Amino acid sequence: MRLATIRTRTGTSAARLDGEVFTEIPGHADVGSLLADEDWRQAARTATGGQRHRRDEAELHTLVPHPSHVVCAGLNYKAHIKEMGRELPAHPTLFAKFADTLTGPADPVATVPEDPEMDWEGELAVVVGRPAYRVREEEAGRYIAGFTVANDISMRGWQNRTTEWLQGKIWARTTPVGPVLVTPDAFDPAGATLRTTVNGVPVQEHPVADLLFSPEYLVAYVSTMIPLRPGDLILTGTPGGVGRARTPSWYLRAGDRVEVSVDGIGTVSTPIT
Amino acid sequence: MRLATIRTRTGTSAARLDGEVFTEIPGHADVGSLLADEDWRQAARTATGGQRHRRDEAELHTLVPHPSHVVCAGLNYKAHIKEMGRELPAHPTLFAKFADTLTGPADPVATVPEDPEMDWEGELAVVVGRPAYRVREEEAGRYIAGFTVANDISMRGWQNRTTEWLQGKIWARTTPVGPVLVTPDAFDPAGATLRTTVNGVPVQEHPVADLLFSPEYLVAYVSTMIPLRPGDLILTGTPGGVGRARTPSWYLRAGDRVEVSVDGIGTVSTPIT
Repeated sequence: MRLATIRTRTGTSAARLDGEVFTEIPGHADVGSLLADEDWRQAARTATGGQRHRRDEAELHTLVPHPSHVVCAGLNYKAHIKEMGRELPAHPTLFAKFADTLTGPADPVATVPEDPEMDWEGELAVVVGRPAYRVREEEAGRYIAGFTVANDISMRGWQNRTTEWLQGKIWARTTPVGPVLVTPDAFDPAGATLRTTVNGVPVQEHPVADLLFSPEYLVAYVSTMIPLRPGDLILTGTPGGVGRARTPSWYLRAGDRVEVSVDGIGTVSTPIT
Repeated sequence: MRLATIRTRTGTSAARLDGEVFTEIPGHADVGSLLADEDWRQAARTATGGQRHRRDEAELHTLVPHPSHVVCAGLNYKAHIKEMGRELPAHPTLFAKFADTLTGPADPVATVPEDPEMDWEGELAVVVGRPAYRVREEEAGRYIAGFTVANDISMRGWQNRTTEWLQGKIWARTTPVGPVLVTPDAFDPAGATLRTTVNGVPVQEHPVADLLFSPEYLVAYVSTMIPLRPGDLILTGTPGGVGRARTPSWYLRAGDRVEVSVDGIGTVSTPIT
């Protein structure tokens, strides 16, 4: 099943995607609201009376506009860690984002005058499907509603002002998430490739199977500290190929378009303005 | 004016403290809800019909239970930075907490089996009073509703697993905040001393005036990145004297009581269980 949050004339609505048609899921303004319903799978599967929209005419909102937690992993692709000459870490490196850092999967992201070093980070993201507190890795899969795509657009100047990355990672409306959530029965991370392009030029291309800490591991790990709730997002980290690591460095400028795709989910396509 | 969120038989309520009596402020379940009212000063000042509670009988809730942002500064007391042999940094070091990391100013905090290195960090906290996006330091004071006290209780083992501190800082219900918000007309950070005790033994005692980045600077700085909203919290950092920096290290154990006081605001008193 494929779910999205679409913009409507009166606000937003959760919707199910079948082929080229979105069907609104009545009573739920977004996928976060839908997932908070214990019977969300049933509600989503059986929604038939809702308004329908052609996929190519629908305007997509960020998948979960108000998650209670957005947790992001860094340094999580094995090949990238090794090529940087580092040892594989024993624990995930984690930082946070705020809900208003998120934006829609086709929305523009504006450059900021304070930091000219705007960079891309294509990522697979996990969406939590039910309350998860202190769950074990072996059972964590049952708490995952599905997977989506994110671009953890980062302001490298501010990120590297101090040892804590937060201030490069939380700028308003800079992290596109979407276009859809794909449930685990319809998506296998082990077989998927993540790709990022800038103005059509490939800059990241890597198998998701190379993740050091798996989606299940991350859900269990974060749930040790805080009670995860439906709609919470975990961004799993980016592989090699970011702009800052290039020689010379390559940063995003107004007029660029950056796209992140994961096989079987779709593409987040971001015009930089 | 002094404001708090108190627990009532039916939930919680914002309340004004006059001397030894809390008066409930009708229509507002907590200080966050109150501050979201543009006329909160007027609403708080004129509330007279609400139920009254003796201060020594009132049970206090965390001051703002659902802030949209909790941002924390590290390395922000000049004497502490210098005694560590570091240069004064040019920019604040920032990390985030989640709303469900917060707890009441007299609530117990439970030790966790995963990390025996639970440490204290007494801090002055700033509460945002109205929407603040890209405000300048010179005008930032007008966006501050008031000041309160926090203990950024930290799990040092997890905090130091990686370079990003987040995972030592977000455990559920480990950051007590309160007991009251004191408005800027009734509190001057420049004249206040912050004190922390463990089982009555003084462990931190430092003038708040030694902050490198002031409350106004921090509000302006964070507002450059994200739109701050009423009720948002900025924890301004801790001075020297934490348990990890001692020889030998000193960590909190079940049965301990840790207290953080700021002159003119009050005390956060936390039994460790």
